[in-house]
Amino acid sequence: MTEGTHFDQVTIIGAGLIGSSVARAVRRGNLAGRLVLADASADVCAEAERLGLADACLTNVADAVRGAGLVILAVPVGAMASVGAAIAPALEAGAIVSDVGSVKESVLKALQSLLPAHAHLIPGHPVAGTEHSGPAAGFASLFDGRWCILTPPEGADEAAVARLTDFWTALGSKVEIMTAQHHDLVLAITSHVPHLIAYNIVGTASDLEAVTRSEVIKYSAGGFRDFTRIAASDPTMWRDVFLNNKDAVLEMLGRFSEDLTALQRAIRWGDGDQLFDLFTRTRDIRRRIIDAGQDDAQADFGRPHKP
Amino acid sequence: MTEGTHFDQVTIIGAGLIGSSVARAVRRGNLAGRLVLADASADVCAEAERLGLADACLTNVADAVRGAGLVILAVPVGAMASVGAAIAPALEAGAIVSDVGSVKESVLKALQSLLPAHAHLIPGHPVAGTEHSGPAAGFASLFDGRWCILTPPEGADEAAVARLTDFWTALGSKVEIMTAQHHDLVLAITSHVPHLIAYNIVGTASDLEAVTRSEVIKYSAGGFRDFTRIAASDPTMWRDVFLNNKDAVLEMLGRFSEDLTALQRAIRWGDGDQLFDLFTRTRDIRRRIIDAGQDDAQADFGRPHKP
Repeated sequence: MTEGTHFDQVTIIGAGLIGSSVARAVRRGNLAGRLVLADASADVCAEAERLGLADACLTNVADAVRGAGLVILAVPVGAMASVGAAIAPALEAGAIVSDVGSVKESVLKALQSLLPAHAHLIPGHPVAGTEHSGPAAGFASLFDGRWCILTPPEGADEAAVARLTDFWTALGSKVEIMTAQHHDLVLAITSHVPHLIAYNIVGTASDLEAVTRSEVIKYSAGGFRDFTRIAASDPTMWRDVFLNNKDAVLEMLGRFSEDLTALQRAIRWGDGDQLFDLFTRTRDIRRRIIDAGQDDAQADFGRPHKP
Repeated sequence: MTEGTHFDQVTIIGAGLIGSSVARAVRRGNLAGRLVLADASADVCAEAERLGLADACLTNVADAVRGAGLVILAVPVGAMASVGAAIAPALEAGAIVSDVGSVKESVLKALQSLLPAHAHLIPGHPVAGTEHSGPAAGFASLFDGRWCILTPPEGADEAAVARLTDFWTALGSKVEIMTAQHHDLVLAITSHVPHLIAYNIVGTASDLEAVTRSEVIKYSAGGFRDFTRIAASDPTMWRDVFLNNKDAVLEMLGRFSEDLTALQRAIRWGDGDQLFDLFTRTRDIRRRIIDAGQDDAQADFGRPHKP
């Protein structure tokens, strides 16, 4: 294993949107002597090989991690424990084990007890994605300019944390370090609850009697359409997110519902000032997101996208 | 006034995003001998003139409608009545008066009693927009491929409805006719409630103590960012929408909240199957919106847009 951002071997387990994007970005940055993908699905592996994403794609995860200085688990959060158990006996001494899961405390707990002491567990979460799934959906620039959060446990090896930080920086990300618990609270409001309410309103809309589903689809340009994009995200991944970040999601959902009840009351009683005040305040957050480079100001609402 | 889609004079009152887009599309389609804009704000009028959007931009709405065969009100729903009262004495015999408001029953009721019997009132709503406001934000292709809903009152002049249908078709829209009441129910779920919950979650996120506002902004790429786009829409316009479509919004909001409570319970009790079933069902709606041409399949989540 050489020093810096280059590893003799990087193994990525899970060849979906995120795993295949990591593979592409590793290739783009020339960050691995050998790049190995693994996926439980033989079909997905075959597609990954057809796309030329790695030097090999294996269905046996233990075989895949042999020789790897860095192993990244890119599987749904609910599959982390079984993958951890399967790779544990085959991990090299000094190997860094990380992941890309959207929940961090449950992943940390699940893997900490399973992995051998000679491996360095440093959970991670690149805050990036699209609504598409599978190896063909990934792209090398997915992480450019996006934040990647690392949540090393107490007492984690500092050199390993530094190497993983350099690795994600080389993938294009900006890296931030925080506790797993704080990560789960932050992502509950910036990602998990937004996905839940998007899924929810699409469900509500499709169950109406007075408005047909075809009307919902025809007139979706009024705002609903943008929710369906989010609600088209991978079902398995998101089921696992909600089951594994229950406390933080329920806490944020409680606040959301309280606030919504207050708005509902303002509408019922015709309190236009309260509505106007909120609608003005939210514009400022939008401006700050654009200033921070996390979106562009180009109008959306169904306008064409660059490929 | 000549027949078909061409009018000797078209007057658009309100030179914001939608009004200025109608003006640009009228120019693009060569649909008016003379194109007059009006706006209560002298600054907005000056900007519209600087942009060359019309033959004239007047601050006096009565003067603006003189000579017009078609008058389109593109002002917030709450301003329709005062504009209607101001233009009523100056309307030509046989003039078609329409609007672009997002709520139709309240607009119909407000204008019906104000306008003279010799004018044809046919409310309308092009289901299109962006999160930006003002005369500079409009563009001629905004209505291309989008639906425009007309809600003629009972007994409306059929020839006038046909002419307005032809006009919107010439602007690039597909036209549908329904009652004002049904329109308000459909838009409550496809537009009004989505905007309300987007505004609401952006408000909830900005009020947290345990998560800083700067964290919310940094990690917004996880889904929240797309809500801020919607929540950056014009505050006055949206306040008026909620105040004027109260019953339908409260009805749809009640259903949304019931469904969200059921999801919340599924998370609390760890019912993964219920979550997975919903998350799978919502993907199908997304596919049908893309099939219907109301969005493209290109991944979003902050990827660059075409200008």
